[in-house]
Amino acid sequence: MKLRDLGEEGLIRRIARTIRTGPGVVRGIGDDCAVLKGPGRMLRLFASDMLVEGVHFTRDAPAEGIGWKALAVNVSDVAAMGGLPRQAVISLGLPRATPVSFVDRLYRGLRRCAKMYGVDWVGGDTSRAPVVVIDVAILGEVEKERVVYRSGARPGDGLWVTGPLGGSLRSGRHLRFRPRVKEARALTARAKPHAMMDLSDGLGPDLLKMCEASGVSAILEAGRIPRHAGCSLEQALNDGEDFELLVAAAPRDAEKLSRLGLRRVGTVVPKKGKPSVTLITPRGVHAPRAITGFRHF
Amino acid sequence: MKLRDLGEEGLIRRIARTIRTGPGVVRGIGDDCAVLKGPGRMLRLFASDMLVEGVHFTRDAPAEGIGWKALAVNVSDVAAMGGLPRQAVISLGLPRATPVSFVDRLYRGLRRCAKMYGVDWVGGDTSRAPVVVIDVAILGEVEKERVVYRSGARPGDGLWVTGPLGGSLRSGRHLRFRPRVKEARALTARAKPHAMMDLSDGLGPDLLKMCEASGVSAILEAGRIPRHAGCSLEQALNDGEDFELLVAAAPRDAEKLSRLGLRRVGTVVPKKGKPSVTLITPRGVHAPRAITGFRHF
Repeated sequence: MKLRDLGEEGLIRRIARTIRTGPGVVRGIGDDCAVLKGPGRMLRLFASDMLVEGVHFTRDAPAEGIGWKALAVNVSDVAAMGGLPRQAVISLGLPRATPVSFVDRLYRGLRRCAKMYGVDWVGGDTSRAPVVVIDVAILGEVEKERVVYRSGARPGDGLWVTGPLGGSLRSGRHLRFRPRVKEARALTARAKPHAMMDLSDGLGPDLLKMCEASGVSAILEAGRIPRHAGCSLEQALNDGEDFELLVAAAPRDAEKLSRLGLRRVGTVVPKKGKPSVTLITPRGVHAPRAITGFRHF
Repeated sequence: MKLRDLGEEGLIRRIARTIRTGPGVVRGIGDDCAVLKGPGRMLRLFASDMLVEGVHFTRDAPAEGIGWKALAVNVSDVAAMGGLPRQAVISLGLPRATPVSFVDRLYRGLRRCAKMYGVDWVGGDTSRAPVVVIDVAILGEVEKERVVYRSGARPGDGLWVTGPLGGSLRSGRHLRFRPRVKEARALTARAKPHAMMDLSDGLGPDLLKMCEASGVSAILEAGRIPRHAGCSLEQALNDGEDFELLVAAAPRDAEKLSRLGLRRVGTVVPKKGKPSVTLITPRGVHAPRAITGFRHF
């Protein structure tokens, strides 16, 4: 069997199955960040995300945008847990013939993102590689009572997103998106979200992951899904790389979320059999046929 | 200018120059790990190391050894600061056509190393990539009074190593080496080493880095350098990937280090002009001509 037959989800399940963790670990593999015991009432968040040339960006993309994105996707992971990003280590693989000016622009993007989100770049590694590879590992922190997992969605919860979806790769938005740290912090300060994650693979596939982690199903209302200009429903569902937050919250929090600018897109329902996502359009009810998302392998 | 003209040291200096860090950071870029403020009397250690197929291993190398090495080089970074490894996140880039059996063996090596050194594997990322890339980020901890930097070597210190050097790549030892965690802990429990680092690029080039960080020079005594069977002096100086520890310690600690099994290889001296490493052989005194080390770019 080859990796392309197993898929990313299959690979992650295969890893997670075999791993046991010690008493310092609150939550291991399976959420946007690992959650570790921290000092006092704080928890530590720990995550990494790898960007590879030809997969997550092309070499002709603006280098500053690539650098921005490499750190921003990690900041977004911390935001998705309700936390604040703190420090990062950055491992960089580069071909020997890379122009130093490319590296300088890449670093400018990394530094700009670090500065804007209060992240200290404290170390990392550099290596020769056949294509550009950037792997960032991030540390964050969050108060115990404000951490939000993707596994807490309950039937009856509303499903919300922090902004419009679709067309991120095509428009170049994926190289300059703003991780939703402030939005997540405002959210957990004023409401009690039950589940949260960032939208990297697309609303459809990512919502399905939230459902699987929570043991529930979900209904999406096509007419409510906010889209970027020129994007079809399918694009809003499947394009991925939006890095908006997807939130599940009790009906009593609806007004608060609405006031914070979030948009309601659906409802959590009990699962029948396997967790699933159903799409309601003016023309009827759809199975997740339309939900394909980003294929990692 | 291309990266191959700048070199790895030039690249790291270029990065470090432009970076300022916040109050949570005790030591940023430039040592084996970043050092962060921890709870109470502890400090947190944070580092990452990237392995790339064709650079750090070949595809026909045993996959379990590649997995072992990917985590072990990070454990070694924590050992080099005098700390204990705690948690790791592992980002893995893999070609689509990778056999799942390769990935399983890779994971077995990672898990075996994690178990032996008490590391919790808590998360990471997986991505498609043109060659196998493994980047591990590690968290460790160390008591404030036991952290050891590479920058503390003083004239008059003895220079010591924890084991024989040379031939690590050729013999396959680099895929099964034992990071010197216990040795480093015993060392800081019984003695007061002034400086410490792990030997990844070779005794010659790595000692030069310790000298540069400490603002000193060093003399190596060729006859004292312990070598693996069949290795020449040049190999012991330049092969790299030994992952033994290099230690600078005051003469009063000599007996303790000797009793712990460390071998004395030289002496720290005041620098004249730039920091340098001088090699003394039975045939005379040599400039660092023989010191070439691993070329990263």
